[in-house]
Amino acid sequence: MAGNSFGTLFRVTTWGESHGPGLGAVIDGCPPKIALSEADIQQMIDRRKPGRAKTGTARKEADQAKILSGVFEGQTTGTPIAVMIENKNVDSSAYRPYADLYRPGHGDYTYDAKYGIRDWRGGGRASARETAARVAAGAVAAVLLRRENIHVTAYTRALGGIVCSGFDSAAIEQNMFCAPDMAAARKMEERVDAVKQAGDSLGGVVEILARGVPAGLGEPVFDKLDAELARALMGIGAVKGVEIGEGFAAAGITGSAHNDPLTPEGFASNNAGGILAGISTGQDLVARAAIKPIPSIAIEQQTVDKSRHARSISVKGRHDISAIPRVNVVCEAMACLVIADHLLRQKAIC
Amino acid sequence: MAGNSFGTLFRVTTWGESHGPGLGAVIDGCPPKIALSEADIQQMIDRRKPGRAKTGTARKEADQAKILSGVFEGQTTGTPIAVMIENKNVDSSAYRPYADLYRPGHGDYTYDAKYGIRDWRGGGRASARETAARVAAGAVAAVLLRRENIHVTAYTRALGGIVCSGFDSAAIEQNMFCAPDMAAARKMEERVDAVKQAGDSLGGVVEILARGVPAGLGEPVFDKLDAELARALMGIGAVKGVEIGEGFAAAGITGSAHNDPLTPEGFASNNAGGILAGISTGQDLVARAAIKPIPSIAIEQQTVDKSRHARSISVKGRHDISAIPRVNVVCEAMACLVIADHLLRQKAIC
Amino acid sequence: MAGNSFGTLFRVTTWGESHGPGLGAVIDGCPPKIALSEADIQQMIDRRKPGRAKTGTARKEADQAKILSGVFEGQTTGTPIAVMIENKNVDSSAYRPYADLYRPGHGDYTYDAKYGIRDWRGGGRASARETAARVAAGAVAAVLLRRENIHVTAYTRALGGIVCSGFDSAAIEQNMFCAPDMAAARKMEERVDAVKQAGDSLGGVVEILARGVPAGLGEPVFDKLDAELARALMGIGAVKGVEIGEGFAAAGITGSAHNDPLTPEGFASNNAGGILAGISTGQDLVARAAIKPIPSIAIEQQTVDKSRHARSISVKGRHDISAIPRVNVVCEAMACLVIADHLLRQKAIC
Amino acid sequence: MAGNSFGTLFRVTTWGESHGPGLGAVIDGCPPKIALSEADIQQMIDRRKPGRAKTGTARKEADQAKILSGVFEGQTTGTPIAVMIENKNVDSSAYRPYADLYRPGHGDYTYDAKYGIRDWRGGGRASARETAARVAAGAVAAVLLRRENIHVTAYTRALGGIVCSGFDSAAIEQNMFCAPDMAAARKMEERVDAVKQAGDSLGGVVEILARGVPAGLGEPVFDKLDAELARALMGIGAVKGVEIGEGFAAAGITGSAHNDPLTPEGFASNNAGGILAGISTGQDLVARAAIKPIPSIAIEQQTVDKSRHARSISVKGRHDISAIPRVNVVCEAMACLVIADHLLRQKAIC
Repeated sequence: MAGNSFGTLFRVTTWGESHGPGLGAVIDGCPPKIALSEADIQQMIDRRKPGRAKTGTARKEADQAKILSGVFEGQTTGTPIAVMIENKNVDSSAYRPYADLYRPGHGDYTYDAKYGIRDWRGGGRASARETAARVAAGAVAAVLLRRENIHVTAYTRALGGIVCSGFDSAAIEQNMFCAPDMAAARKMEERVDAVKQAGDSLGGVVEILARGVPAGLGEPVFDKLDAELARALMGIGAVKGVEIGEGFAAAGITGSAHNDPLTPEGFASNNAGGILAGISTGQDLVARAAIKPIPSIAIEQQTVDKSRHARSISVKGRHDISAIPRVNVVCEAMACLVIADHLLRQKAIC
Repeated sequence: MAGNSFGTLFRVTTWGESHGPGLGAVIDGCPPKIALSEADIQQMIDRRKPGRAKTGTARKEADQAKILSGVFEGQTTGTPIAVMIENKNVDSSAYRPYADLYRPGHGDYTYDAKYGIRDWRGGGRASARETAARVAAGAVAAVLLRRENIHVTAYTRALGGIVCSGFDSAAIEQNMFCAPDMAAARKMEERVDAVKQAGDSLGGVVEILARGVPAGLGEPVFDKLDAELARALMGIGAVKGVEIGEGFAAAGITGSAHNDPLTPEGFASNNAGGILAGISTGQDLVARAAIKPIPSIAIEQQTVDKSRHARSISVKGRHDISAIPRVNVVCEAMACLVIADHLLRQKAIC
Repeated sequence: MAGNSFGTLFRVTTWGESHGPGLGAVIDGCPPKIALSEADIQQMIDRRKPGRAKTGTARKEADQAKILSGVFEGQTTGTPIAVMIENKNVDSSAYRPYADLYRPGHGDYTYDAKYGIRDWRGGGRASARETAARVAAGAVAAVLLRRENIHVTAYTRALGGIVCSGFDSAAIEQNMFCAPDMAAARKMEERVDAVKQAGDSLGGVVEILARGVPAGLGEPVFDKLDAELARALMGIGAVKGVEIGEGFAAAGITGSAHNDPLTPEGFASNNAGGILAGISTGQDLVARAAIKPIPSIAIEQQTVDKSRHARSISVKGRHDISAIPRVNVVCEAMACLVIADHLLRQKAIC
Repeated sequence: MAGNSFGTLFRVTTWGESHGPGLGAVIDGCPPKIALSEADIQQMIDRRKPGRAKTGTARKEADQAKILSGVFEGQTTGTPIAVMIENKNVDSSAYRPYADLYRPGHGDYTYDAKYGIRDWRGGGRASARETAARVAAGAVAAVLLRRENIHVTAYTRALGGIVCSGFDSAAIEQNMFCAPDMAAARKMEERVDAVKQAGDSLGGVVEILARGVPAGLGEPVFDKLDAELARALMGIGAVKGVEIGEGFAAAGITGSAHNDPLTPEGFASNNAGGILAGISTGQDLVARAAIKPIPSIAIEQQTVDKSRHARSISVKGRHDISAIPRVNVVCEAMACLVIADHLLRQKAIC
């Protein structure tokens, strides 16, 4: 299988470059007779919009998702759902100076190494813009999940080293970083201002929370629910780490501290993050993704051109300071895809 | 696809329960005319053996790998390579008391939730013993990789909260924890002794290092090399987190600190862990897996039985204190499978 | 995997309904740096056009294929190639009378049985129009194959019971039925005229010939080259049978008559149709597909509506008398997809 | 995916060579809690036994199927079911004279062309013996199907040019060719005797009939039920053609003759063979496979050796005169695998 499809039964194939005619997703395997509208998709697409937070680029991306197939009279038909987002207001001239340069931290070098050719306009397929198609697909999965009372959300756990304490769900919508901690959000703002001033960028941590996931999802031994989430999240360009429940912290504690006791009322804690032996426990699913700092920075960096000559580069123009919080909805979308797929897989055998 | 296969072109399917007749792997897609012997596999299987470190169980697992197909006169033929390991000296009686109990931190509860039936003998398919089949398959992949001068190793980065500093490759073979830091290894021994005494268990961190991986491996956007490694490692029972290169630390630093500059001589650093935009850079591949503490502990824990009645449990008998270092070779095997698969996938298009 | 993707390495996913906004194909896994233009695709799409033969509908389908991704400066980039064909001049009103009727020989009944919902406009996804997307994808495969000097063609072996004798390749372009036998073509014309008059329809046999296929393609034991061709061809709506080489005739002769002797100069005959044990021999690949008569006929037929009430139906309007010769290029496209995929699969292991 | 797996949800991977230690199948995705015993498998394996008909070899193949995993206390557990059949009484010496010869009609030449190496003992992986593993897997599928009142049978429609008329199900068990027509069976016996005498071999046609298949199975547009059956059957070594319902005969008749009218009581005929638009109609599924004559014949044939020198070959010893009727159960097994897989796929979406 080539690398642009995801899922076994709820299966998504995406296509598109940053500065080509558009981006799209084909969702194959969505059950029939589910009410689905372009608004369902647009709502989630809009959360990828820049400009919400100070971390965002000024670029206007008025992405409009269109459904091209698979929906009839407002309902899915069981045939492939094609969604397309046209690329508008594309101006590739800002990228021309880097057409022969390998921007550090980007895929320029590796795409050339792999394919021997590279669409340098706007980063081509390696652009973060690619994720818009995933979000469109994830939105369809989210509709399916809501019918089963499964709700997935993603929010900012950390930004630029500032870590949220606790979880105040109301706060998420009240600050531009989508952080569940207002005090942390204020510190994040200061941090972002300082780094922006310096021409640098920041990473952070996104937390994904899925509520209502029934016990029993996940397919041992290779398609465990956590393995699939890990693949889904690590496959997002900016992600360098994934953990489930206590994650890396689990490595430092004892079994007696980590094991979640069972009681007649259910599990007494959720260090496992809702997954045991690769199968959902029925508790909240909790995953975290480490987001690396945006590689495009104004600060001058050392690099080479295609001929391996030393060059220096300073990337100016409209660039996010951090992928957070725009990447949050991408993480959420990927988690939706994984859960929807495993929901169908479980239905097949029980 | 059901969940017991891994890989696209170098594809492995495993089967077997802990206390059934045996375990096995079918490797489909291995190129023909590669010299392969049972000894190649046995060597890697032996590294899963217990008893090497104080962390290990006393159980005798004299696993013998047999090649049942796909090799003729010492060479692979291009047809599926079936490898089998018989289960010997199996005594399920020690597990009978837990047949109706859900051991905390184990898959007992979730297997029942998923399948409605569970082979409780030795943990059935959810046993760590399942990984022996992965190691057998990984050993075949390792043979393939060595022909291309790719060498994968896994060692202990942390155990029970004690983190190795630096990387002394010689040390790995000189201490029972396979830690690349003798001083850390000594502290680990003390920690293990104390925890064993307390009837508790420990987690840790395994680091996987792959040398010689050519630039260009990995299939954007969903089958990126890091995404596939994440899936591969997170799919190991004990793993709760995976990171590449700087991983979670990347979330806390700036772009100027994280980006690896390019020079005419190559990359000036390797914070990326050898992967950019999901494609290998040609540098060392570096990944880490967070291993949770062994859930079977002598300390009494609260749980329920199948009828949801409150019970208490204290798991005695031969159990490892930590999955480390036995799990190291499993991580190594999974990394070998990923790299071998992507090596073949890249050959197909170039 | 859901059912709208085809191929392992050269992998195509199609979408679209007959009367929706359009149809499309996403080709994932095409090697990079291959010269590809919309004209390459259009040329093959045009061969699906009606009006060429008397068998064809009068409907104007001026299908225009647009490449939306995966091509940069005239070359493939290794990323997914999305091709879209808009549906123009769509008028669904002619189908409204059949919205609640099950047309005999069509998928109306089975789509309802499967999905519980059906886009009745123009036959929805079950329309022969769906195959335009396959042809677009096949055209990309054909470009890839031509680089390796592999040439695939499909022509009419029989129509309405009139079977061509011999193979006069020049004739194919000289008669409206694409038959390699001018005398047979003349009889076909008479047969078509008579059947048209009667308000009935005809089936036939398409023969697919691939020249230049190297020995060694095909993946035993389930993905044999003939097995994959069979799946590819039988998956075309109108096809009810597939045979390779002598095919069903082989069932009636002896081994001494069927076996192709080998000589120092190569095989002395080609009863096998270029495939032995599921692997190409290096000879011409020869396959045939049985095409059933078009089910939409003016002759009154007995049927039921959704409520299972008896009804009668007479399908008038613009309908082909036979899928032949329009289906020929669809067969050719599917064969191209199979061969391209197996070419890449073979490259991966040798 | 490599070529030794079949199915999406009910997925089988087979391995093994004719003269190696054994053959096996891993069935992944079988639902849990299904009663399954070795006897269920053995019963179907035994139908592959030679010696039943005059067409059969004298070789003793007392194949014993062993279940190695996935069954606990007589029930499937949802984990992979590994089945193994040991190769016993193997004597490769009879094949040594052909180690460097390409037997006409066999895969010797193509295996060498593909892999550059070939296990010549007993035909290696290309031996018909490989199908024993498919039958074992198909037997598990058959158990699953019987629970849903789906019954699949395969019988002889033609042998050596003698075609059965009608369908007398009682006859199938009463003649050694498994033909549903006693008069035809008698003629077949004469034909077999004559051909045996001549040192030649025969082909024939197997018909597969599946009763009780619910409407709605099959996944348009590429994984249509007929497409999957075609792949399944054509992937059997001896098969050169596959047809559904009227099949190739449909190519010669008109739409009014071929369309199956619908009535309030159901379809009035079954020319479609139980499949419309790739989805089952709820009627009997009817497929036919053309079986080529056994290529190993005593009659001297022209061939070459590995160095392309002209040689002659006369294959003596224990060889079947025809794959029929031993291949019937293989066809049946493959059909069971297809139907079981699509049954699960349909469950996932409805």
